[in-house]
Amino acid sequence: MKTALQLLHPLTVRFNEVDSYQIVWHGHYVGYLEEGREAFGRQYGLDYHRLEAEGYLGPIIEVALDYRKSLRYSDQILVETTFVETSAPKLIFSYRLLRADTREVVCKARTVQVLLSKESRALQYAPPPFLTEWKNHWIPATL
Amino acid sequence: MKTALQLLHPLTVRFNEVDSYQIVWHGHYVGYLEEGREAFGRQYGLDYHRLEAEGYLGPIIEVALDYRKSLRYSDQILVETTFVETSAPKLIFSYRLLRADTREVVCKARTVQVLLSKESRALQYAPPPFLTEWKNHWIPATL
Amino acid sequence: MKTALQLLHPLTVRFNEVDSYQIVWHGHYVGYLEEGREAFGRQYGLDYHRLEAEGYLGPIIEVALDYRKSLRYSDQILVETTFVETSAPKLIFSYRLLRADTREVVCKARTVQVLLSKESRALQYAPPPFLTEWKNHWIPATL
Amino acid sequence: MKTALQLLHPLTVRFNEVDSYQIVWHGHYVGYLEEGREAFGRQYGLDYHRLEAEGYLGPIIEVALDYRKSLRYSDQILVETTFVETSAPKLIFSYRLLRADTREVVCKARTVQVLLSKESRALQYAPPPFLTEWKNHWIPATL
Repeated sequence: MKTALQLLHPLTVRFNEVDSYQIVWHGHYVGYLEEGREAFGRQYGLDYHRLEAEGYLGPIIEVALDYRKSLRYSDQILVETTFVETSAPKLIFSYRLLRADTREVVCKARTVQVLLSKESRALQYAPPPFLTEWKNHWIPATL
Repeated sequence: MKTALQLLHPLTVRFNEVDSYQIVWHGHYVGYLEEGREAFGRQYGLDYHRLEAEGYLGPIIEVALDYRKSLRYSDQILVETTFVETSAPKLIFSYRLLRADTREVVCKARTVQVLLSKESRALQYAPPPFLTEWKNHWIPATL
Repeated sequence: MKTALQLLHPLTVRFNEVDSYQIVWHGHYVGYLEEGREAFGRQYGLDYHRLEAEGYLGPIIEVALDYRKSLRYSDQILVETTFVETSAPKLIFSYRLLRADTREVVCKARTVQVLLSKESRALQYAPPPFLTEWKNHWIPATL
Repeated sequence: MKTALQLLHPLTVRFNEVDSYQIVWHGHYVGYLEEGREAFGRQYGLDYHRLEAEGYLGPIIEVALDYRKSLRYSDQILVETTFVETSAPKLIFSYRLLRADTREVVCKARTVQVLLSKESRALQYAPPPFLTEWKNHWIPATL
């Protein structure tokens, strides 16, 4: 049975993230995903710092968000970030935003990143060696 | 032949929208879509002010972005916002972000909004009369 | 000897707060101040929720920031928020942003808020009773 | 009689800039100042692109904002950016945010920037030649 490689990252909704509808403005969720993804990356060695140290940038090429419930100022949430395995030279993550107390699902999302050479900005058409090693290390460990 | 109801809205990339990769941070595109959608709404009478005047809020329940090219500080872009007809009590828009000079497609996107009663926050399961009238007015006019 | 009523609140610089100079964009510090001020308010009972429960809004009328050092992605900082006593019907806070490890001062700042009736939005020309009680409770306690 | 070198730049308040008080969140004004300052810079040849082309970065070291009136969604404003002459190797600007229709002053502000070498990030202790030339060109012209 396969267990997903994932991380739960806690967040508190900030005053300036709430719009005139008294709920978190939908665009701020993109930042929440990034906070979750980077917390995942710091935990497992795949954050922007690691990418840059390996000579790569990881720009986002797709974001999809499916909002289920609204969030209000000072709400406590958990960003659940899950690594999605792919043979493509991409980083794919899926996300669930959960209320910290009830674990109610507030939002589901998905991001896709490509890898560029930091130097030349050339798109990578094959997974870089460091990523293959990273997967070999982490993905079997979670089977 | 059906012509889509759409609007082109010009924008200039701001310094504070560019991240450490020297490109516009992907989350800011959600704001660009909103600027385009609201410009459309002011033009055709379907912006947040109109919704509120009719007694409704229009929160976003879906956003999907497909990034094709990156944007840099001071780039001139056009947000092309297109009304997508649906019989559901929702507002659906599709978007293309274009370079103002070359019309190259930088990003394609889609948003879905539901309608809530401003008073009770109750989800509307049928299109409100004002929306039906709005469609009767605008959609045939564009056939 | 008077001890100031203050709180230290930890923050981590987010990727999307860093601009093309590779440092935190100066405008994001205003959000850092608010995070510190609200953490102080939750600790001592003077946050936006408390103000609203008492029937008041607390809009900002002055912000001043004096930047000493720059911040980079993933830097750990502490927002030190200090309540500044005044007889005026205002909330004044001073701030120091410190590196979490070295306690080096990164930024000094100050904000001033007035109090409005939540109902009428009328400016308060005298401190509301709850604020006087709050001060009686907390300010002597810190002498 | 000295006439100030200044520019008026029009802006429209965006939906996502308005907070739960139904007014523009105070931190967003820092972005408005930057939009005004950069519009001034594009007009007179002193924007971030020019600085970089000359080999300099211009990070902000001071921001002060004095809020007089609040702004609401879709309000039309003018950012009046005025160059403040100084013999120091700094760029100082003062600002007034005005309602576009009544010219009522909404906010007064001031920013100070230092100049760093783009290459070495070394602080400049004397005005770079390009800045002296720029002043010789523009400042007498406005007497």
